[in-house]
Amino acid sequence: MKTYTIALLPGDGIGRDVTAAAWAVLEKAASLNGFSLDATSYPWSCDYYLENGSMMPAEGIETLRPFDAILLGAVGWPSKVLDSVSLHGLLLPIRKAFVQYANIRPHRLLPGVQGPLRSDGFDILCIRENTEGEYSGAGGRVHQGTDNEVAVETSIFTRKGVERILRFGFEQARARSGKLASVTKSNAQKYSMVFWDEITQRLSAEYPDVEVTSYHIDAMAARMVMAPDSLDVVVASNLFGDILTDLGAAIQGGLGFAASANINPDRSAPSMFEPVHGSAPDIAHLGIANPIAAIWSGAMMLEHLGETAAAARVMAAIGATTARGIGAIPGKDRTDAITASVLSALG
Amino acid sequence: MKTYTIALLPGDGIGRDVTAAAWAVLEKAASLNGFSLDATSYPWSCDYYLENGSMMPAEGIETLRPFDAILLGAVGWPSKVLDSVSLHGLLLPIRKAFVQYANIRPHRLLPGVQGPLRSDGFDILCIRENTEGEYSGAGGRVHQGTDNEVAVETSIFTRKGVERILRFGFEQARARSGKLASVTKSNAQKYSMVFWDEITQRLSAEYPDVEVTSYHIDAMAARMVMAPDSLDVVVASNLFGDILTDLGAAIQGGLGFAASANINPDRSAPSMFEPVHGSAPDIAHLGIANPIAAIWSGAMMLEHLGETAAAARVMAAIGATTARGIGAIPGKDRTDAITASVLSALG
Ligand SMILES: CC(C)[C@H](C(=O)O)[C@@H](O)C(=O)O
Ligand SMILES: CC(C)[C@H](C(=O)O)[C@@H](O)C(=O)O
Repeated sequence: MKTYTIALLPGDGIGRDVTAAAWAVLEKAASLNGFSLDATSYPWSCDYYLENGSMMPAEGIETLRPFDAILLGAVGWPSKVLDSVSLHGLLLPIRKAFVQYANIRPHRLLPGVQGPLRSDGFDILCIRENTEGEYSGAGGRVHQGTDNEVAVETSIFTRKGVERILRFGFEQARARSGKLASVTKSNAQKYSMVFWDEITQRLSAEYPDVEVTSYHIDAMAARMVMAPDSLDVVVASNLFGDILTDLGAAIQGGLGFAASANINPDRSAPSMFEPVHGSAPDIAHLGIANPIAAIWSGAMMLEHLGETAAAARVMAAIGATTARGIGAIPGKDRTDAITASVLSALG
Repeated sequence: MKTYTIALLPGDGIGRDVTAAAWAVLEKAASLNGFSLDATSYPWSCDYYLENGSMMPAEGIETLRPFDAILLGAVGWPSKVLDSVSLHGLLLPIRKAFVQYANIRPHRLLPGVQGPLRSDGFDILCIRENTEGEYSGAGGRVHQGTDNEVAVETSIFTRKGVERILRFGFEQARARSGKLASVTKSNAQKYSMVFWDEITQRLSAEYPDVEVTSYHIDAMAARMVMAPDSLDVVVASNLFGDILTDLGAAIQGGLGFAASANINPDRSAPSMFEPVHGSAPDIAHLGIANPIAAIWSGAMMLEHLGETAAAARVMAAIGATTARGIGAIPGKDRTDAITASVLSALG
């Protein structure tokens, strides 16, 4: 029997609740589809930090490298460890070390879920650059504490970094409707964003079957609310993708439904799958977190591993659950009840 | 009779159509309220650029300085002049030269206007930093044209710049509900945004009557769609404010309703009032642009000039118009018809 090795990183807060739920669903889907998943769980988290002084051991990255994939819950518990420490100590280094440069986030309404928009006919795939740009971490402060203080934060875009994410976007667009939206702000950021636009233009010659349109980030944010059905594949920088995917989560009914995949397209290192939501310390371990985003992220993991039928089975079970109203209304059903419904719908 | 001198900059495209409409309304409101407006119009625009090689004359800024206020339509016509040239040649230099550091944008639904959200009870005042930050224009490119190319764009935040916009936000919050939302992304941008958060914290001690909450930009974008009624005054950096105010325009029914004021709070130079929408070359001079955003911006100008009663009169006339369904549905009514209705509702 084919076996995949999976590193589980439940992390903090509700990350633990939803990872347990997702894992139960994934294991059952695997056995129904004739393969197996072999999990190793690591306790890296803010609690781990308080005991050990780091979010993961020094050899953490090398420990994860041999796995076929990583399933992550959520990282952060600001009252225990500053976000700037916890995220830069666990989540962000994994994305960068394993060159998971494509962060993919699907936005559509699950059956039975009512979003905040009057319109409900949309199916958007956001692709966010995940390794550089506005979150490069380059910057500094001078004259600290004085009236004269200045803080700078530098966005760094490399041709390789921009080209590979755009190429990934063109490929995804080709596999879907052939329509690609590229998001910049070149009327106000004339170095980074003009560079991005130039590379988009140049690549478009290689993909004559893809119709690419450039939007400014402000106009795109408005469009996702005014005319989400006019969009298909959207590709954006680290920051712009971050903003647009929370907006995407909002229009799909909330963070309880927003799944994501941090993909290394070259498969030179493991990819990582995680719900978009955070650790939500206020509701941690109360058994009320919605596990659907985590389960959907797990389905994306199965898809990435090539287990397309099992992935489709999980998505169908999620859809059958929300269609019955279970897990469809934020805060209504308990984690257990939603998980049980998905498990039974698996077949 | 009290007379205010106003510089009119109709600019490009529908900027000209809506400025003419707004001006008719403002003149009538002034005469009904016993003061007068003395306009001088300047043709600075992309057409002006094509004839003269610059968006405005070298002494443009000094020409505008003596005026009591500036009313602007829209700038830009990309097929004639690159946006990076036209905006950096006219709109952005005015904002910076006249230290119009507070860009104020109100977001609420006018009577009779249906927005894209199911929810309609919100009244948000966005305050955007307007002179520095992510749109500082600092950056560069190395190894241009090679595989090794890198583009950098540096956000520059000064203590003075951050402090004054936050102070302005605290004052506005104090004058409204006492609730202020400050928007950053300090978990991923640890120089600029941590700096902003620190200054927010420090200032909050001076405003014990204001309850300030920090949100990350991604969470705030989602909140504006999921729970817009939970927000009142929102203060954000240049880029984040730019994005949030287009989102604000979207939830209020579209850019045809989004007004804005570029304020110099010290009154050391004129402030500028402009609709949020652009020049929309595709519908320029067809007589179908919605003038409501421009008229509303004009009402903000009257307010700024201290003509509160006249400002309220204009807002009431706009409300009476949209309540009758005129100008309430994007694309339905002609510019003339909407303007005529507002004029007659003035009394
Ligand atoms: C927690 C934070 C650093 C992270 C990000 O911005 O990448 C999150 O918002 C996300 O979208 O995955
Ligand atoms: C045209 C552009 C430079 C401008 C900006 O980003 O400031 C516009 O989007 C706005 O919001 O006023």
